[in-house]
Amino acid sequence: MISSTTCINSFRLARHYATSTAVKYTAFGTPNQVLKVVQENVNDNVNGDEVLVDMLHAPINPVDFNLAQGTYAFQPQLPAIAGSEGVGKVVKVGSNVTGLKPNDFVIPVISSKVAGTWRTKAVFSEKQLFKAPADIPAEALATVSINPTTAYRLLNDFEKLKAGDVIIQNAANSMVGVSVIQIAKARGIKTINVVRNTGDIDDVVDHLKKLGGDIVVTEDYVRTQAFQRLVADLPRPKLALNAVGGSSATELARNVADNGTLVTYGGMSREPVTIPTSHLIFRNVNVRGFWLNNWFETHSAAERQAMFDDIFDLIRNKHLKVWVEKHKFSEFSSAFARSQESGKFRKVVLDLQL
Amino acid sequence: MISSTTCINSFRLARHYATSTAVKYTAFGTPNQVLKVVQENVNDNVNGDEVLVDMLHAPINPVDFNLAQGTYAFQPQLPAIAGSEGVGKVVKVGSNVTGLKPNDFVIPVISSKVAGTWRTKAVFSEKQLFKAPADIPAEALATVSINPTTAYRLLNDFEKLKAGDVIIQNAANSMVGVSVIQIAKARGIKTINVVRNTGDIDDVVDHLKKLGGDIVVTEDYVRTQAFQRLVADLPRPKLALNAVGGSSATELARNVADNGTLVTYGGMSREPVTIPTSHLIFRNVNVRGFWLNNWFETHSAAERQAMFDDIFDLIRNKHLKVWVEKHKFSEFSSAFARSQESGKFRKVVLDLQL
Repeated sequence: MISSTTCINSFRLARHYATSTAVKYTAFGTPNQVLKVVQENVNDNVNGDEVLVDMLHAPINPVDFNLAQGTYAFQPQLPAIAGSEGVGKVVKVGSNVTGLKPNDFVIPVISSKVAGTWRTKAVFSEKQLFKAPADIPAEALATVSINPTTAYRLLNDFEKLKAGDVIIQNAANSMVGVSVIQIAKARGIKTINVVRNTGDIDDVVDHLKKLGGDIVVTEDYVRTQAFQRLVADLPRPKLALNAVGGSSATELARNVADNGTLVTYGGMSREPVTIPTSHLIFRNVNVRGFWLNNWFETHSAAERQAMFDDIFDLIRNKHLKVWVEKHKFSEFSSAFARSQESGKFRKVVLDLQL
Repeated sequence: MISSTTCINSFRLARHYATSTAVKYTAFGTPNQVLKVVQENVNDNVNGDEVLVDMLHAPINPVDFNLAQGTYAFQPQLPAIAGSEGVGKVVKVGSNVTGLKPNDFVIPVISSKVAGTWRTKAVFSEKQLFKAPADIPAEALATVSINPTTAYRLLNDFEKLKAGDVIIQNAANSMVGVSVIQIAKARGIKTINVVRNTGDIDDVVDHLKKLGGDIVVTEDYVRTQAFQRLVADLPRPKLALNAVGGSSATELARNVADNGTLVTYGGMSREPVTIPTSHLIFRNVNVRGFWLNNWFETHSAAERQAMFDDIFDLIRNKHLKVWVEKHKFSEFSSAFARSQESGKFRKVVLDLQL
C-alpha cells in the first residue's frame, strides 16, 4: 500500500506540479525568525487566465520587513510568500490568456496583496501581471514597480511642475529619493535634498550630486540661516516630499512655497507630521499623503501603462539608473542581512534562478 | 494772528470735514492699553470713487485683538482704526460712484487691510463696499462678513457635501461653529460638534442642539470608546473643521473618513496640527487650511455676490440666526471688557451711533 500511494503521488507530480523554492512565513514576527526558505509544489498545468512564471529577480524592500512583522497597513493572509515586487518570464499560459505568451517578461502588480516574488516559480492570473519590455535589464524591471513609480507619481500628481521649478525632499538617499532626483533632473526641475547626517555623509552628498541633485544638505543644516541664504536665489519649492515625519516634515512645511503641497509617503522616524497652524491658514500649504497601493487600486490599466512606458523610456535614455547589487537566492540569509545594513547606495536584489 | 488762524480753520472744517469718533491705535500692544477712543476729522467732500458712510454697527471679533497686538498674519499700517467688519449707511457719493447712492446699506469688505469699522463716519472707495439688502437687520449685516462667510466657504470649498453626509468640528460654539451648525442643518448635513468641557457645558450642549447640532460632545469624550459607539451608525465625516490645533485636531484627523479633508481655520490652542503619518498615507486624509482674506483676494465680485446672496437668504429664511448683544459705542470700554468674557453665546456688537 505504501509503495502504491507513493507511485500515484509521483505520477501526479510529474504531470501537474513543478517544485518552487520560496521564502515563506506562517506567522508575523521578527523577519529573521519568521521568514523560512521552503520547497513547495506549483501547479504546472495552468488553466483559464493562469500564467506560470519563472521568477528571475526580486529586490528586498523595507516594506517586506513590515509585512513580515505584521505592522504594515494591511496584513497578508497567512501563510504568505514574501517579496512585493520583481520580474519573471512566462513559461506557460492558460487557454483564456490573450495578452501574454511564453518568454514574455512580466512584473506582478498586485495592490493590497503581497505578490510573493521571492520564489522561483509562481502562478499568477493574467490581470496581476504587467508585460515588460525585453530591452530593459531584468534587474531594472525587478525594481521599477515600487520606488520609481512612487517617485513618478509624487512628481506628477500633486503640483504641476515645469522646468525651473524647485522641489524639496527628505530621505533623499532612499530608493524613492534617488528616483525623484533623477526624474526631476530629466524634466529640468531643481531638487533640494535633505539627508540624515550619518557617518558617510560626504559619500551621500557626492552620490546625490552626481545623480543630479542640485542642493544636498543635512537635516540640521535646513534649520540654519546659512541654508536660507543658500536657497535665497531659487524659487521656493512648490512641492515637498516627506518620508520621515517629525521635525523633518515640519521643516519641509516651513520651506514649501505658499499654496504649495507637502506630500507624506513614508514615516521613517515613526513621529507624526506636525504643521504649525499658520502655514495651513495663512500660507495655504496643502498637506497630503500618497500610497502607491491606493494609486494602483484606483487607476486603469491604460494609466498604469502610460506610467510604466514613461519610466521605461527614462531608463532607456539613461535618465533613470537603478542601483542594485545582486545576491544568489541560494544565499538568501546573507542577502537578507546585507539588505538591513545602512549606508548602501544599492538595493539588494535576489537572483532567483541562482 | 491767532484769532485769524482759528477763523480760517473753522471755515475749512465747516466746509469739508465732519467729526468722527473712532477707536484708534498708534502702536501694537495689549489691546486694553493701545486702543484709544479719539475724535477725528473725516473729509465730508467726497470725490471720484469715494463714498462717505455713517457706520451703524460693528462687532468685536477675536481677530481685532490680534491685529491690535500686532500678532496677526499681517500688521495694519499705523496709526490704524480698529474693527474688521460692520455695516454702514451711505451719506454721500463721489461723482464716479455708479453702484451706490445715499441711504444704501453697505458692508466694508477689505482683504489684507483693516476696514476700521469702529468709528462713526468713514470714507471708503466704492470697490471696498458691498451693497447690502435693506430687509436684513443691521446687526446681522454687521456680523455676516467674517464668521458666516467662513462657515459657508468651509462647507462649500473642500468636500462636495450632500444631505445625509456628516461633518465634525471642534470649537463648535464659536461664532463660526454655530454658523456651520445652522448652514449644515439647512442643507441636511449632520454635524458632530466638539466643545471644551467648561463650567457651562450643559448650557453649551443645550444651545448647540437647539441650533440643530446632531451630536455635541466634549474634547475628552471624543477619545472614548463610548463616542465611537455613539457615531457607529453614522457615515464617517467627510469633512473635519479645526479651529483649535494640538490634540483636538489630531482627534478630528482620526475621525474623518478615508479620503476626507481636515481644514484648519484657527489655532486657539496655539499648538500645531499633528497628524499621524498613517492617516495621510493609508487613509488619504487631506489636510488643508482656510483663510477668508485669501478667499476674498482670489475671488471675483460675482463670486462674492453669490455667497452673500446665499447667506442673506439663509438669514431671511430663519435658517441662520446671528446672536448678538448690542452695546453703545459711547460705552466702548465696558463693551470691550464684555467681549473678552468667555461663555457668551452672543457676539458683542457696537451700536456706533449711540
